[in-house]
Amino acid sequence: MHPLDAVITLKPIAEDEFLAHTQSDYANMIGPFGGATCAALLQAVIQHPKKIGVPVAFTLNFAAPLADGPFTICTRAARTNRSTQHWVIEARQASGVVALATAVFAERRLTWSDTEAQTPQNLTSPSSLARMPTENRPAWVQRYDMRFIEGAFPDAFDGQEQAHSQSRLWVRDHPPRPLDYPALMAISDSFFPRIFVRRRKPSPIGTVSITTYFHADEAAMAAQSDHYVIGTARANTFHQGFFDQSGELWSHQGQLLATTHQTVYFKD
Amino acid sequence: MHPLDAVITLKPIAEDEFLAHTQSDYANMIGPFGGATCAALLQAVIQHPKKIGVPVAFTLNFAAPLADGPFTICTRAARTNRSTQHWVIEARQASGVVALATAVFAERRLTWSDTEAQTPQNLTSPSSLARMPTENRPAWVQRYDMRFIEGAFPDAFDGQEQAHSQSRLWVRDHPPRPLDYPALMAISDSFFPRIFVRRRKPSPIGTVSITTYFHADEAAMAAQSDHYVIGTARANTFHQGFFDQSGELWSHQGQLLATTHQTVYFKD
Repeated sequence: MHPLDAVITLKPIAEDEFLAHTQSDYANMIGPFGGATCAALLQAVIQHPKKIGVPVAFTLNFAAPLADGPFTICTRAARTNRSTQHWVIEARQASGVVALATAVFAERRLTWSDTEAQTPQNLTSPSSLARMPTENRPAWVQRYDMRFIEGAFPDAFDGQEQAHSQSRLWVRDHPPRPLDYPALMAISDSFFPRIFVRRRKPSPIGTVSITTYFHADEAAMAAQSDHYVIGTARANTFHQGFFDQSGELWSHQGQLLATTHQTVYFKD
Repeated sequence: MHPLDAVITLKPIAEDEFLAHTQSDYANMIGPFGGATCAALLQAVIQHPKKIGVPVAFTLNFAAPLADGPFTICTRAARTNRSTQHWVIEARQASGVVALATAVFAERRLTWSDTEAQTPQNLTSPSSLARMPTENRPAWVQRYDMRFIEGAFPDAFDGQEQAHSQSRLWVRDHPPRPLDYPALMAISDSFFPRIFVRRRKPSPIGTVSITTYFHADEAAMAAQSDHYVIGTARANTFHQGFFDQSGELWSHQGQLLATTHQTVYFKD
């Protein structure tokens, strides 16, 4: 079983309650990688018998540190319309609510289509780039094969402030795994904190809220399979203890699969 | 009383339940302007006796059409930490849940600060630009003084497709009103649907999810007062029935007050 499939294996306890467990394969410095938590909560809806459509928008607020171990996921279809569905999803541990999410699912259909965001151009192929070393990194970093074109995680926190925090990279699960919504959701939280890229110095940080918009249907996922996706991320502003990040995930063939935004606590 | 203050006047019914009412001053084609709904739900937390800090992130999913008339707002502080607080807010009518929101509030403090997003440059001053005509527009459009630099709402749906959907404008409440969080939230949903700017043809549309990140503290709000803010908005992709929009709201002095994102249903 791929480690991500262990993350999204949920055991039904009641009609709208599921048991999940953090996975050491996705451990972060303290507690689990946030993207894994997102994947588990999204999967709670995807596998729900009452679910209709595919994910269009998913927002998760990290309410409190998630302790390593089991947690329960409670789902609620707050509103079901003809072709859209609105969910509230909560993760709980003994300490209370640890993550709070909402999801919009919808049936998609062919319409006029156009992408205005600029497709990343003239990228060196992943096979010509070195994989980011993962030794002495948290386990979750080892779960990704990241090949940076720009804005890599610094080799050392040398305090050399950079002009900007923009990153571009090829990224896929490691070991490779065909792309699906939980994997895409997790990848959307896999960009290193912009403040590390920008300032090259350590700081306590923590994502407080992430929103991902999905633009890919099942056919786009199948076409992507286990190829690398192209990720781009940049900060808009660092101010009074929080910075925000916007990013894009593109298929290897240049289709915009998801856009993603988050706001992150930082100290100092 | 300013019409926006009527929108955000909430009557306590129970500890976590408030009565609100749609306002004809903010009527849209059908039902109320979404930004007014956002402002009311955000205000439910702002005025809550248990609230700590200021809004940092607010997400609202439009679950179903809001009928003109009263609606109840239920709030729940799902988690209160030392300096952050996580809320779930729901608006209900007889039909069920009509809007579903989450908010992160936090106490902000001085830290290292920098803005990477590009400050709008060389803008014509609002006094040198004509106000967008509001005759024959829904009432909510009359509640804003919009002065477009680029990407105005088309004078006519002539079907002349534009190269992109980017807009830049000066905008403030009309009549003018000192900026606060509910007003800033509402303005963040005041960009016209990108598909109208791009395609200049009518289409049924509806925002399904909006997320706004606040970067302004009370002092920044006070400095802005009732000056115009600078709004920018662009679409990333239109695809299979949904398009997403990213935007920024800048103070008249060039401070990034909020970044905002939404995904919107469209037909055809």
